[in-house]
Amino acid sequence: MSLFSFELDPALAADPVFDMHRRGKMAITATVPLAGRDDLSRAYTPGVARVCEAIAADPDLAHDYTWTGNTVAVVTDGSAVLGLGNIGPAAAMPVMEGKAVLFKQFGGVDAVPICLSTQDPEEIIAAVRAMAPSFGGINLEDISAPRCFEIERRLDEALDIPVFHDDQHGTAVVVLAALRNATALLGRRFADLRVVITGAGAAGVAITKMLIAAGLPGASLIVCDSRGILHAERGDLTPAKAELAAATNLSGRAGGVREALIGADVLIGVSGGIIDEEALAGMAPGGIIFALANPTPEVPPQVAARYAAVVATGRSDFPNQINNVLAFPGILRGALDVRATTVTQRMKVAAAEAIAEVVTNELSAEAIVPSALDPRVAPAVAAAVARAAERDGVARRLALGHAESPAPIG
Amino acid sequence: MSLFSFELDPALAADPVFDMHRRGKMAITATVPLAGRDDLSRAYTPGVARVCEAIAADPDLAHDYTWTGNTVAVVTDGSAVLGLGNIGPAAAMPVMEGKAVLFKQFGGVDAVPICLSTQDPEEIIAAVRAMAPSFGGINLEDISAPRCFEIERRLDEALDIPVFHDDQHGTAVVVLAALRNATALLGRRFADLRVVITGAGAAGVAITKMLIAAGLPGASLIVCDSRGILHAERGDLTPAKAELAAATNLSGRAGGVREALIGADVLIGVSGGIIDEEALAGMAPGGIIFALANPTPEVPPQVAARYAAVVATGRSDFPNQINNVLAFPGILRGALDVRATTVTQRMKVAAAEAIAEVVTNELSAEAIVPSALDPRVAPAVAAAVARAAERDGVARRLALGHAESPAPIG
Repeated sequence: MSLFSFELDPALAADPVFDMHRRGKMAITATVPLAGRDDLSRAYTPGVARVCEAIAADPDLAHDYTWTGNTVAVVTDGSAVLGLGNIGPAAAMPVMEGKAVLFKQFGGVDAVPICLSTQDPEEIIAAVRAMAPSFGGINLEDISAPRCFEIERRLDEALDIPVFHDDQHGTAVVVLAALRNATALLGRRFADLRVVITGAGAAGVAITKMLIAAGLPGASLIVCDSRGILHAERGDLTPAKAELAAATNLSGRAGGVREALIGADVLIGVSGGIIDEEALAGMAPGGIIFALANPTPEVPPQVAARYAAVVATGRSDFPNQINNVLAFPGILRGALDVRATTVTQRMKVAAAEAIAEVVTNELSAEAIVPSALDPRVAPAVAAAVARAAERDGVARRLALGHAESPAPIG
Repeated sequence: MSLFSFELDPALAADPVFDMHRRGKMAITATVPLAGRDDLSRAYTPGVARVCEAIAADPDLAHDYTWTGNTVAVVTDGSAVLGLGNIGPAAAMPVMEGKAVLFKQFGGVDAVPICLSTQDPEEIIAAVRAMAPSFGGINLEDISAPRCFEIERRLDEALDIPVFHDDQHGTAVVVLAALRNATALLGRRFADLRVVITGAGAAGVAITKMLIAAGLPGASLIVCDSRGILHAERGDLTPAKAELAAATNLSGRAGGVREALIGADVLIGVSGGIIDEEALAGMAPGGIIFALANPTPEVPPQVAARYAAVVATGRSDFPNQINNVLAFPGILRGALDVRATTVTQRMKVAAAEAIAEVVTNELSAEAIVPSALDPRVAPAVAAAVARAAERDGVARRLALGHAESPAPIG
């Protein structure tokens, strides 16, 4: 008999994080009684056949008479997990489970982690299309750029349920919320800001598009990748980067991060690289630095504070944590509530405004966004997203009182 | 704005079955605390990265440090749901949810319903292979024959986790258990029985193979499809039926069900058709009739009782309910407990023997199988299946006390 031991390294076994992860972080529970024969004959055969027949006659009833209406798949191919990179589907699962429990905790959404054994875009698209009838929405997660752009676009076109790539849009929504509040705090006009984004992956692309959608002129934006400033003359750009180059940096500035930052009001780091202090010295005084790489920010916050009036990171141990958990539970909650067919740019901007508004009356340089644990955020985001979906004509149902908790009975 | 009403027919809204199904029958729950910042930093970033790195270094750790080790996908294409036929994925969901909650209730297994938008075998195989890293096992469900045979075989070859098509093997296991006990009750020898199976779909094929695996000579078996007895001279057989014809009916009997039943000791109906009373009259006296079509048995049990000493159906409102719930929760529980790479024929026979043994000392003509709600069954099946997996060399881990409850903390 083949037999392996599966023993954990003793050093890891003593780590409370491993203790917490033993057997995973989530479970399925029944929300109906199953105590006796009558229960069984309703929840299963023969009674269940009547529900099946009703849905076969009117498939829209599945939203209300199965769990799909409250359920999203959290789908990854394990290619860009946290800062760990391409660690594959098995090793990605703890992150996807973590995401799933946050979906439930903050949004009341039942999320199912799906880690795929393929990194081929066509196979990913085919697999997600195949499983889509099982879910009310699809949250794409930790899929590397540029594949993530085409995968999201084609799934969104193919499916009539919301498809949301959190690493792009979740990050962009929270960045916009933080930037709105930082701008207000500093008494600046949003449309006047000169912004530099370092990193042109999933987050960088989405942040750029979001800032433009929210009213920042493309001319005021410069995006850098690892080779420097994106501009129209560069011959080494992917289609997604070429699109950014065409929409930003209209003065055609060239060079590296240092050249990009000269006179900038805002630096948004989503690159994972390190930015020299000398480069920061070129920024306009009294500005804003978001250094969002995790776990190592592009600029240590204490250094950033010497060059900017407001500083944020992605870390929970510094003030102003830019954390996607402020966005994704409420966005999908709102989209499910009105049975949105997609997540529009306006729904994302509405989510950002709702996050910002939660702390509008409590603003300080150390509190431009709500805490990741603030229970007011997700309901506010859900309501704003649902209203925006209605305005954009992508809602298949009117929102009926977003204050209602959508969590299942059990 | 597009807006639909999704209102249920008032007659259905008054049906308690629909009331029970509102919002579905299951939910996701967290099994770890998420109350404060420390919890979040362990369950999610940054702590979770340490678990990801450990699994990336040793993927086998995923079984213990994610929920996958206790999780199965319940996968259907909606092509053969209950007796309702090809109702598609959305309408199949209530059955898959029902299955999932029974998996949890009886086996402590976290089951996730996956309803696929395709009925193409290649696309089904590709989708299940793609999602397989998310689960510890695959339960195929309500996929029509003959596609189900190839889908199961190829997935079982491709994946190192158990793949189990319940409509085949769950049914076959419980039929074997019931037949063992009926035979013992009647003081007959199992190997001497002359058996007729009507129905050569998923269940009929699996029952035939299971009875042969359990020691019944193929010569003593006759299988009928809707056109009559399977025999080697018929030119209209699918590969699966041709295989049955070659393995059974060695005397080459031809004709319909009436001809098949002449002198038979046992009739096992898994056809959904109706069997005439005159045909039953040809059976040997004092035999066994299992009329398993749901909701309408091939023979009404009161009629069957005039021609047989022991009668069973698939219905909960008659004695001797042959219900797959006696099999699938314990079989997958046992397979997960020892990390079996597949479900062998010997594991299935062991499951049948375990089910039969639960009521060995309480046998009567009206109680040849345990009640579907008997809590003794699944643990006994799980232990027997785990031992058989070890004997067959398909266990990757020794079973450590099957009495231990594997249900998650929450």
